[in-house]
Amino acid sequence: MSGGVVWLTGLSGAGKSTLATALAARLAARRSVELLDGDEIRLYLSQGLGYSREDRDTNVHRIAYVARMLAKHGVLVLAAVISPYAATRAEIARLSREAGHDFVEVFVNASLAAVEARDVKGLYAKARRGELASFTGISDPYEAPEAPAVEVRTDRDSPEACVQAIVDALVARGLVA
Amino acid sequence: MSGGVVWLTGLSGAGKSTLATALAARLAARRSVELLDGDEIRLYLSQGLGYSREDRDTNVHRIAYVARMLAKHGVLVLAAVISPYAATRAEIARLSREAGHDFVEVFVNASLAAVEARDVKGLYAKARRGELASFTGISDPYEAPEAPAVEVRTDRDSPEACVQAIVDALVARGLVA
Repeated sequence: MSGGVVWLTGLSGAGKSTLATALAARLAARRSVELLDGDEIRLYLSQGLGYSREDRDTNVHRIAYVARMLAKHGVLVLAAVISPYAATRAEIARLSREAGHDFVEVFVNASLAAVEARDVKGLYAKARRGELASFTGISDPYEAPEAPAVEVRTDRDSPEACVQAIVDALVARGLVA
Repeated sequence: MSGGVVWLTGLSGAGKSTLATALAARLAARRSVELLDGDEIRLYLSQGLGYSREDRDTNVHRIAYVARMLAKHGVLVLAAVISPYAATRAEIARLSREAGHDFVEVFVNASLAAVEARDVKGLYAKARRGELASFTGISDPYEAPEAPAVEVRTDRDSPEACVQAIVDALVARGLVA
Protein backbone atom coordinates (compact mmCIF):
# COMPACT_ATOMS: atom_id res chain seq x y z
CA MET A 1 0.00 0.00 0.00
CA SER A 2 1.34 3.42 -0.85
CA GLY A 3 2.77 5.74 1.76
CA GLY A 4 1.37 9.08 2.77
CA VAL A 5 1.34 11.75 5.41
CA VAL A 6 -1.52 12.38 7.81
CA TRP A 7 -0.84 15.73 9.43
CA LEU A 8 -2.77 16.43 12.64
CA THR A 9 -2.74 20.12 13.47
CA GLY A 10 -4.43 21.88 16.37
CA LEU A 11 -3.98 23.69 19.66
CA SER A 12 -1.90 22.26 22.47
CA GLY A 13 -4.16 19.92 24.41
CA ALA A 14 -6.64 19.48 21.57
CA GLY A 15 -5.92 15.75 21.47
CA LYS A 16 -3.54 15.40 18.50
CA SER A 17 -1.21 12.90 20.17
CA THR A 18 -4.08 10.97 21.71
CA LEU A 19 -5.82 10.58 18.37
CA ALA A 20 -2.60 9.79 16.49
CA THR A 21 -1.67 7.13 19.05
CA ALA A 22 -5.11 5.53 18.88
CA LEU A 23 -5.05 5.74 15.09
CA ALA A 24 -1.61 4.10 14.91
CA ALA A 25 -2.81 1.24 17.14
CA ARG A 26 -5.92 0.83 15.04
CA LEU A 27 -4.04 0.75 11.71
CA ALA A 28 -0.92 -1.19 12.71
CA ALA A 29 -2.43 -4.55 11.78
CA ARG A 30 -3.59 -3.24 8.41
CA ARG A 31 -0.57 -1.39 7.05
CA SER A 32 2.81 0.07 8.06
CA VAL A 33 2.40 3.23 10.09
CA GLU A 34 4.73 5.51 12.02
CA LEU A 35 3.81 8.10 14.59
CA LEU A 36 5.80 11.33 14.63
CA ASP A 37 4.89 13.26 17.72
CA GLY A 38 5.84 16.92 17.74
CA ASP A 39 6.92 17.01 21.38
CA GLU A 40 8.96 13.83 21.16
CA ILE A 41 10.59 14.69 17.88
CA ARG A 42 11.72 18.05 19.20
CA LEU A 43 13.96 16.13 21.58
CA TYR A 44 15.58 14.17 18.78
CA LEU A 45 15.66 16.57 15.87
CA SER A 46 15.16 20.07 17.14
CA GLN A 47 16.73 20.49 20.54
CA GLY A 48 17.82 24.09 20.82
CA LEU A 49 14.96 25.43 18.74
CA GLY A 50 12.45 27.67 20.45
CA TYR A 51 8.96 28.85 19.63
CA SER A 52 9.52 31.83 17.38
CA ARG A 53 7.82 31.63 14.01
CA GLU A 54 11.13 30.77 12.39
CA ASP A 55 11.97 28.02 14.87
CA ARG A 56 8.48 26.53 14.70
CA ASP A 57 8.70 26.49 10.92
CA THR A 58 12.11 24.83 11.02
CA ASN A 59 10.74 22.16 13.35
CA VAL A 60 7.70 21.57 11.14
CA HIS A 61 9.91 21.30 8.05
CA ARG A 62 12.20 18.79 9.75
CA ILE A 63 9.31 16.58 10.77
CA ALA A 64 7.83 16.86 7.28
CA TYR A 65 11.18 15.93 5.73
CA VAL A 66 11.37 12.75 7.80
CA ALA A 67 7.70 12.06 7.05
CA ARG A 68 8.29 12.32 3.30
CA MET A 69 11.23 9.98 3.50
CA LEU A 70 9.15 7.40 5.35
CA ALA A 71 6.19 7.87 3.00
CA LYS A 72 8.50 7.28 0.05
CA HIS A 73 9.12 3.82 1.50
CA GLY A 74 5.44 3.00 1.83
CA VAL A 75 4.84 4.15 5.38
CA LEU A 76 1.70 6.00 6.42
CA VAL A 77 3.05 8.69 8.71
CA LEU A 78 0.87 10.16 11.43
CA ALA A 79 2.36 13.50 12.45
CA ALA A 80 0.92 15.27 15.48
CA VAL A 81 2.30 18.80 15.55
CA ILE A 82 0.66 22.11 16.55
CA SER A 83 1.98 23.64 13.29
CA PRO A 84 0.11 26.92 13.75
CA TYR A 85 0.93 28.61 10.42
CA ALA A 86 -1.29 27.91 7.42
CA ALA A 87 1.37 28.88 4.89
CA THR A 88 3.85 26.41 6.39
CA ARG A 89 1.28 23.61 6.32
CA ALA A 90 0.47 24.47 2.69
CA GLU A 91 4.17 24.33 1.87
CA ILE A 92 4.75 20.88 3.40
CA ALA A 93 1.57 19.60 1.74
CA ARG A 94 2.94 20.78 -1.59
CA LEU A 95 6.31 19.11 -0.96
CA SER A 96 4.59 15.82 -0.12
CA ARG A 97 2.44 15.94 -3.23
CA GLU A 98 5.43 16.83 -5.38
CA ALA A 99 7.16 13.78 -3.92
CA GLY A 100 4.24 11.75 -5.22
CA HIS A 101 2.27 10.86 -2.11
CA ASP A 102 -0.89 12.00 -0.44
CA PHE A 103 -0.94 14.60 2.32
CA VAL A 104 -4.02 14.57 4.53
CA GLU A 105 -4.52 17.60 6.70
CA VAL A 106 -6.53 16.75 9.80
CA PHE A 107 -7.77 19.64 11.89
CA VAL A 108 -7.99 18.48 15.49
CA ASN A 109 -10.39 21.14 16.57
CA ALA A 110 -11.28 22.02 20.14
CA SER A 111 -12.18 25.52 21.24
CA LEU A 112 -9.61 27.48 23.18
CA ALA A 113 -12.13 27.62 26.03
CA ALA A 114 -12.31 23.81 26.09
CA VAL A 115 -8.59 23.10 25.99
CA GLU A 116 -7.95 25.85 28.51
CA ALA A 117 -10.60 24.51 30.89
CA ARG A 118 -9.06 21.03 30.65
CA ASP A 119 -5.44 22.28 30.69
CA VAL A 120 -3.98 18.80 31.20
CA LYS A 121 -0.37 19.99 31.44
CA GLY A 122 -1.09 23.28 33.21
CA LEU A 123 0.43 25.16 30.29
CA TYR A 124 -2.52 27.44 29.59
CA ALA A 125 -2.54 28.67 33.20
CA LYS A 126 1.17 29.35 32.93
CA ALA A 127 0.72 31.14 29.63
CA ARG A 128 -2.06 33.28 31.10
CA ARG A 129 0.25 34.22 33.95
CA GLY A 130 2.76 35.35 31.34
CA GLU A 131 5.24 32.61 32.24
CA LEU A 132 5.28 31.11 28.73
CA ALA A 133 6.13 33.39 25.87
CA SER A 134 4.87 32.49 22.38
CA PHE A 135 2.22 30.06 23.56
CA THR A 136 -0.11 29.10 20.72
CA GLY A 137 -3.64 30.38 21.23
CA ILE A 138 -2.68 32.76 24.04
CA SER A 139 0.35 34.79 23.11
CA ASP A 140 0.98 33.34 19.66
CA PRO A 141 -1.37 32.81 16.71
CA TYR A 142 -3.06 29.62 15.60
CA GLU A 143 -4.24 29.79 12.02
CA ALA A 144 -7.02 27.23 11.73
CA PRO A 145 -7.16 25.24 8.48
CA GLU A 146 -9.70 26.68 6.08
CA ALA A 147 -10.29 23.50 4.10
CA PRO A 148 -8.82 20.52 5.97
CA ALA A 149 -9.30 17.06 4.50
CA VAL A 150 -10.82 16.03 7.83
CA GLU A 151 -12.00 18.05 10.79
CA VAL A 152 -12.71 16.42 14.12
CA ARG A 153 -14.18 18.13 17.15
CA THR A 154 -12.52 16.68 20.22
CA ASP A 155 -14.43 19.07 22.46
CA ARG A 156 -17.75 17.60 21.35
CA ASP A 157 -17.14 14.08 20.06
CA SER A 158 -15.59 11.01 21.66
CA PRO A 159 -12.01 10.02 20.78
CA GLU A 160 -13.44 6.85 19.18
CA ALA A 161 -15.73 8.86 16.91
CA CYS A 162 -12.88 11.18 15.96
CA VAL A 163 -10.57 8.27 15.13
CA GLN A 164 -13.33 6.66 13.08
CA ALA A 165 -13.82 9.84 11.07
CA ILE A 166 -10.11 9.90 10.22
CA VAL A 167 -10.06 6.20 9.35
CA ASP A 168 -13.05 6.70 7.05
CA ALA A 169 -11.25 9.52 5.25
CA LEU A 170 -8.12 7.39 4.85
CA VAL A 171 -10.15 4.51 3.44
CA ALA A 172 -11.83 6.88 1.01
CA ARG A 173 -8.43 8.11 -0.15
CA GLY A 174 -7.10 4.58 -0.61
CA LEU A 175 -4.56 4.87 2.18
CA VAL A 176 -6.18 2.15 4.28
CA ALA A 177 -7.82 -0.96 2.89
CA MET B 1 14.01 -8.21 3.63
CA SER B 2 14.89 -6.71 7.00
CA GLY B 3 16.09 -3.16 7.40
CA GLY B 4 19.49 -2.11 8.62
CA VAL B 5 21.98 0.71 8.78
CA VAL B 6 25.19 0.85 6.75
CA TRP B 7 27.27 3.62 8.26
CA LEU B 8 30.09 4.95 6.08
CA THR B 9 32.62 6.90 8.11
CA GLY B 10 35.82 8.53 6.94
CA LEU B 11 37.64 11.77 6.23
CA SER B 12 36.13 14.48 4.09
CA GLY B 13 36.92 13.60 0.48
CA ALA B 14 37.57 9.92 1.20
CA GLY B 15 34.70 8.93 -1.08
CA LYS B 16 31.85 8.19 1.33
CA SER B 17 29.13 9.89 -0.75
CA THR B 18 30.51 8.50 -4.00
CA LEU B 19 30.48 4.93 -2.67
CA ALA B 20 27.08 5.32 -0.99
CA THR B 21 25.56 6.70 -4.19
CA ALA B 22 27.01 3.87 -6.27
CA LEU B 23 25.91 1.35 -3.66
CA ALA B 24 22.35 2.74 -3.61
CA ALA B 25 22.16 2.52 -7.42
CA ARG B 26 23.50 -1.01 -7.33
CA LEU B 27 21.05 -2.22 -4.66
CA ALA B 28 17.92 -0.32 -5.66
CA ALA B 29 16.64 -3.12 -7.88
CA ARG B 30 17.23 -5.71 -5.17
CA ARG B 31 15.78 -4.11 -2.06
CA SER B 32 14.55 -0.81 -0.60
CA VAL B 33 17.43 1.51 0.16
CA GLU B 34 17.76 5.12 1.24
CA LEU B 35 20.82 7.31 1.10
CA LEU B 36 21.39 9.75 3.95
CA ASP B 37 24.20 12.04 3.02
CA GLY B 38 25.78 14.01 5.85
CA ASP B 39 26.20 17.24 3.93
CA GLU B 40 22.70 17.17 2.50
CA ILE B 41 21.01 16.20 5.71
CA ARG B 42 22.67 19.04 7.58
CA LEU B 43 20.63 21.37 5.40
CA TYR B 44 17.38 19.71 6.35
CA LEU B 45 17.88 18.60 9.92
CA SER B 46 20.80 20.45 11.40
CA GLN B 47 21.01 23.94 9.99
CA GLY B 48 22.53 26.12 12.67
CA LEU B 49 24.75 23.39 14.04
CA GLY B 50 28.49 23.87 13.71
CA TYR B 51 31.47 21.57 13.96
CA SER B 52 32.20 21.44 17.65
CA ARG B 53 32.25 17.96 19.12
CA GLU B 54 28.82 18.55 20.63
CA ASP B 55 27.30 19.81 17.38
CA ARG B 56 28.85 17.00 15.35
CA ASP B 57 27.47 14.48 17.81
CA THR B 58 24.02 16.04 17.68
CA ASN B 59 24.10 15.85 13.88
CA VAL B 60 25.23 12.21 13.93
CA HIS B 61 22.51 11.32 16.43
CA ARG B 62 19.83 13.00 14.32
CA ILE B 63 20.88 11.13 11.20
CA ALA B 64 21.03 7.89 13.17
CA TYR B 65 17.57 8.53 14.59
CA VAL B 66 16.11 8.92 11.11
CA ALA B 67 18.10 5.89 9.95
CA ARG B 68 16.66 3.72 12.73
CA MET B 69 13.15 4.82 11.89
CA LEU B 70 13.63 3.88 8.24
CA ALA B 71 15.34 0.59 9.15
CA LYS B 72 12.36 -0.25 11.37
CA HIS B 73 10.24 -0.13 8.23
CA GLY B 74 12.50 -2.46 6.29
CA VAL B 75 14.75 0.07 4.59
CA LEU B 76 18.49 -0.46 4.22
CA VAL B 77 19.89 2.95 5.06
CA LEU B 78 23.22 4.05 3.62
CA ALA B 79 24.53 6.88 5.77
CA ALA B 80 27.60 8.78 4.61
CA VAL B 81 28.81 10.96 7.46
CA ILE B 82 32.34 11.87 8.59
CA SER B 83 31.33 10.95 12.18
CA PRO B 84 34.84 11.32 13.57
CA TYR B 85 34.26 10.13 17.14
CA ALA B 86 34.50 6.41 17.88
CA ALA B 87 32.37 6.64 21.03
CA THR B 88 29.53 8.29 19.14
CA ARG B 89 29.63 5.66 16.42
CA ALA B 90 29.60 2.94 19.08
CA GLU B 91 26.59 4.58 20.69
CA ILE B 92 24.53 4.75 17.50
CA ALA B 93 25.52 1.16 16.67
CA ARG B 94 24.20 0.11 20.08
CA LEU B 95 20.95 2.02 19.56
CA SER B 96 20.43 0.33 16.19
CA ARG B 97 21.08 -3.13 17.59
CA GLU B 98 18.79 -2.44 20.54
CA ALA B 99 16.13 -1.48 18.03
CA GLY B 100 16.56 -4.93 16.52
CA HIS B 101 18.41 -4.29 13.30
CA ASP B 102 21.92 -4.65 12.00
CA PHE B 103 24.43 -1.81 12.02
CA VAL B 104 27.32 -2.18 9.59
CA GLU B 105 30.24 0.15 10.16
CA VAL B 106 32.13 0.78 6.92
CA PHE B 107 35.46 2.52 7.21
CA VAL B 108 36.02 4.47 4.00
CA ASN B 109 39.75 4.74 4.41
CA ALA B 110 42.05 7.01 2.43
CA SER B 111 45.18 8.51 3.88
CA LEU B 112 45.13 12.16 4.81
CA ALA B 113 47.92 12.68 2.27
CA ALA B 114 45.73 11.19 -0.48
CA VAL B 115 42.55 13.17 0.27
CA GLU B 116 44.56 16.32 0.77
CA ALA B 117 46.39 15.86 -2.54
CA ARG B 118 43.06 15.37 -4.31
CA ASP B 119 41.22 18.07 -2.32
CA VAL B 120 38.18 18.04 -4.61
CA LYS B 121 36.38 20.84 -2.77
CA GLY B 122 39.49 22.84 -1.87
CA LEU B 123 38.65 22.44 1.81
CA TYR B 124 41.97 21.00 2.92
CA ALA B 125 43.84 23.95 1.44
CA LYS B 126 41.49 26.30 3.27
CA ALA B 127 41.90 24.36 6.50
CA ARG B 128 45.70 24.47 6.15
CA ARG B 129 45.48 28.23 5.69
CA GLY B 130 43.58 28.35 8.97
CA GLU B 131 40.36 29.50 7.29
CA LEU B 132 38.33 26.50 8.50
CA ALA B 133 38.23 25.87 12.20
CA SER B 134 37.54 22.32 13.41
CA PHE B 135 38.31 20.64 10.12
CA THR B 136 38.52 16.87 10.54
CA GLY B 137 42.02 15.54 9.98
CA ILE B 138 43.68 18.96 10.12
CA SER B 139 42.44 20.91 13.11
CA ASP B 140 40.00 18.34 14.52
CA PRO B 141 40.47 14.64 15.29
CA TYR B 142 39.38 11.65 13.25
CA GLU B 143 39.22 8.50 15.31
CA ALA B 144 39.55 5.64 12.83
CA PRO B 145 37.40 2.56 13.49
CA GLU B 146 39.38 -0.15 15.23
CA ALA B 147 37.24 -3.05 14.12
CA PRO B 148 34.91 -1.95 11.30
CA ALA B 149 32.67 -4.53 9.67
CA VAL B 150 34.17 -3.52 6.34
CA GLU B 151 37.20 -1.42 5.46
CA VAL B 152 37.74 -0.13 1.95
CA ARG B 153 40.81 1.72 0.72
CA THR B 154 39.66 4.34 -1.73
CA ASP B 155 43.22 5.62 -2.12
CA ARG B 156 44.35 2.25 -3.48
CA ASP B 157 41.35 0.43 -4.91
CA SER B 158 38.83 1.39 -7.58
CA PRO B 159 35.36 2.60 -6.56
CA GLU B 160 33.95 -0.57 -8.22
CA ALA B 161 36.13 -2.80 -6.06
CA CYS B 162 35.19 -0.87 -2.92
CA VAL B 163 31.47 -1.09 -3.69
CA GLN B 164 31.84 -4.80 -4.37
CA ALA B 165 33.52 -5.36 -1.01
CA ILE B 166 30.62 -3.64 0.75
CA VAL B 167 28.02 -5.58 -1.25
CA ASP B 168 29.77 -8.84 -0.36
CA ALA B 169 29.65 -7.95 3.33
CA LEU B 170 25.96 -7.08 3.09
CA VAL B 171 25.21 -10.37 1.35
CA ALA B 172 27.13 -12.24 4.05
CA ARG B 173 25.06 -10.51 6.72
CA GLY B 174 21.78 -11.31 4.98
CA LEU B 175 20.99 -7.69 4.18
CA VAL B 176 21.14 -8.21 0.43
CA ALA B 177 19.97 -11.34 -1.36
